[in-house]
Amino acid sequence: MSVDAPSLQAEALRLGKQAKAAARRLAPLSTAEKNRALLLMADKLEARSPFLLAENRRDLELAKQAGVSKAVLDRIALDAGRVSGMAKGVREVAALPDPVREVVKLWRRPNGLQVGRMRIPLGVIGIIYEARPNVTADAAALCLKSGNAVILRGGSEAHRSNQAVAAVLREACAESAVPQDAVQTVEVKDHAFVSELLQLEDYIDLIIPRGGEDLIRAVAANSKIPVIKHYKGVCHVYVDADAPLDMAERICFNAKVQRPSVCNAMETLLVHEAIAPRFVPAMIATYQAAGVEIRGCEKTCAMVPGINRANESDWTEEYLDLILAVRIVKDMDEAIDHIERYGSEHTESIVTGNYQRSREFIERVNSSAVMVNASTRFNDGGELGLGAEIGISTSKIHAFGPMGLEELTTTKFIVFGDGQIRE
Amino acid sequence: MSVDAPSLQAEALRLGKQAKAAARRLAPLSTAEKNRALLLMADKLEARSPFLLAENRRDLELAKQAGVSKAVLDRIALDAGRVSGMAKGVREVAALPDPVREVVKLWRRPNGLQVGRMRIPLGVIGIIYEARPNVTADAAALCLKSGNAVILRGGSEAHRSNQAVAAVLREACAESAVPQDAVQTVEVKDHAFVSELLQLEDYIDLIIPRGGEDLIRAVAANSKIPVIKHYKGVCHVYVDADAPLDMAERICFNAKVQRPSVCNAMETLLVHEAIAPRFVPAMIATYQAAGVEIRGCEKTCAMVPGINRANESDWTEEYLDLILAVRIVKDMDEAIDHIERYGSEHTESIVTGNYQRSREFIERVNSSAVMVNASTRFNDGGELGLGAEIGISTSKIHAFGPMGLEELTTTKFIVFGDGQIRE
Repeated sequence: MSVDAPSLQAEALRLGKQAKAAARRLAPLSTAEKNRALLLMADKLEARSPFLLAENRRDLELAKQAGVSKAVLDRIALDAGRVSGMAKGVREVAALPDPVREVVKLWRRPNGLQVGRMRIPLGVIGIIYEARPNVTADAAALCLKSGNAVILRGGSEAHRSNQAVAAVLREACAESAVPQDAVQTVEVKDHAFVSELLQLEDYIDLIIPRGGEDLIRAVAANSKIPVIKHYKGVCHVYVDADAPLDMAERICFNAKVQRPSVCNAMETLLVHEAIAPRFVPAMIATYQAAGVEIRGCEKTCAMVPGINRANESDWTEEYLDLILAVRIVKDMDEAIDHIERYGSEHTESIVTGNYQRSREFIERVNSSAVMVNASTRFNDGGELGLGAEIGISTSKIHAFGPMGLEELTTTKFIVFGDGQIRE
Repeated sequence: MSVDAPSLQAEALRLGKQAKAAARRLAPLSTAEKNRALLLMADKLEARSPFLLAENRRDLELAKQAGVSKAVLDRIALDAGRVSGMAKGVREVAALPDPVREVVKLWRRPNGLQVGRMRIPLGVIGIIYEARPNVTADAAALCLKSGNAVILRGGSEAHRSNQAVAAVLREACAESAVPQDAVQTVEVKDHAFVSELLQLEDYIDLIIPRGGEDLIRAVAANSKIPVIKHYKGVCHVYVDADAPLDMAERICFNAKVQRPSVCNAMETLLVHEAIAPRFVPAMIATYQAAGVEIRGCEKTCAMVPGINRANESDWTEEYLDLILAVRIVKDMDEAIDHIERYGSEHTESIVTGNYQRSREFIERVNSSAVMVNASTRFNDGGELGLGAEIGISTSKIHAFGPMGLEELTTTKFIVFGDGQIRE
């Protein structure tokens, strides 16, 4: 579908209006009605697997012709297992508690008014994402469960796959109480279309971009609609003077090595100087055996011969790889100063046996997740117990950290009176 | 102070950096330290009253010369009573509970991790406001109590008054643990300066404009920083078939007449047709006796001779005056349809004796405040029990409805482990 600029605008407006109308019909539905639609979606994804795989093959062929990298091809590719994975994910969302119409507080005023806050859907969510077609199903399910209509704009490499997944989800809507336009994808491949979507502040309530920092910065810079920003994760583990050595080693190894390519992996290790001689050389040897490249501060380099010296830029680097910056600090204050100066407010963990410092670290460090004696890798919606995750916010407005179903809602005030008036 | 464009940018950046540095020093302060600063501020406002009044007189002289309207002059003007009012407001904020470091939830994961959410300040708040100098003290107090640094940009008519109030507040900071730059005002009067402030997404976390819709739209259109929007309040009261007549009359009168110039005053009255003959003529007579002009739908005009017919545009009008649109509807569905179509998602109230419809109205209407048997005038931070109000949000992101201290915070995840790692 190729269209000129005024048509792009008209097409964006059409989607936005349809989404808003659908959101109004979706908001009052019962949990049972929404769950019925979700379970039908899951069944249909499995039943229509041959169609999904055929459309996916066409994406893969085009991507190969375009010379797309192997890593991207792998992210686009669907197989029977991945399709069942999608269906399973949708069933899991159906099983989660419905946040909509939950009363989170209820109190009484001196004049007898009973006042409370009740969760309601945000309205219309726009999701702008890259490669993976499973995001289409995941994001649609989370939006639907939380009573929001969604406009999905996936990456062009998986265009047919995303359209196919959405078509199946919409079939399920058509056979349930959920309006079809609660799930819409963008048919236009033109890149300029996204800019048009981002102007629709009267129709779309929130934009969640999922992808690299460039995508997120571009979306944020062009949007009139609030955007959930997920910039980088420069996560720290601070090994305190009173850290149990074996626990520190286990956590530090896990935080760096278990999956280095993700935002909650540790990028900089900070170690109290009192424990450093007993901890740093052995830890670095363990890292090196696992293929981790170390970039150390002056003291670290003096303690462990043959490692590279960290530059100033290493302290702000999100390696997403088997590379680790290491710095020896004189106390927790210096560790927290380092985190405030170079960190990204994503995830920081202290390893300590000291009660007072555990409390201080938790209170003083204001990152989206602050941990005591746990791997930074736990900063994830599923691991923290949110049930699912639509994204991670690294800015503090609306949500901070992993976003589950509750973060796709807001609260309205509810007031029960007996005829009260203002004097 | 008159400056060219690059200097404006540099000046904005200077304020932003100072605010961010102050925010980091302010966040960890104890409730007692913050309260001490607030009480000192209140005392100093009273003690320095002659200075404040002298600066205010100079604003008033300039404003008179500039031919500013009487209403604006009244809003700018300070007297001993208004200065004590400011001090009293600051003391009330000191008495409110501190939201910072409150743990709002704490749960346990199957692997033994204890996970919770703890409130933390947002960081730096920018307040852009019109006339009233008391906003300078109110907003600064609320930001300080919630651990946020604030940059205050008041209207040019009250420039000297605002600077004077801020100078007094900063004197109090200097004598307490609160960093002075936690409260900054903009010295530059140049209008273009606001645009520079609105670019500082790395230094300012949230912008709260307080003023007319034009101001808010201009700020929202130019800002790279999230903006709390407060557009209009087209509030409705729906008088149901089962409404107790005397209660309906009391609430409808109060919602329109008690203070018509504010956003939570009723603008449109919806009445069920079954009760209309017994309610509408008498109610309109009461309104007319109080000087309220009525604009009625066809049925209303047929029922009460001599009143003006409402145009389509009357249903979306925020009169802020003694004017009321009245429409007779066939049932609650038609009332809710009307609210969804023409309303502003601000405040709606149903008057009814019917249990089922009270529940349905509360659940189906998604405005920032939805009420049963109460005047719309209660949609106010103080009246709802938030203790104070920094603004009202009519959009659903971050906050919806009146914003108190809690809405000036976000939550971080806190995680207490015993050495847990991801498998």
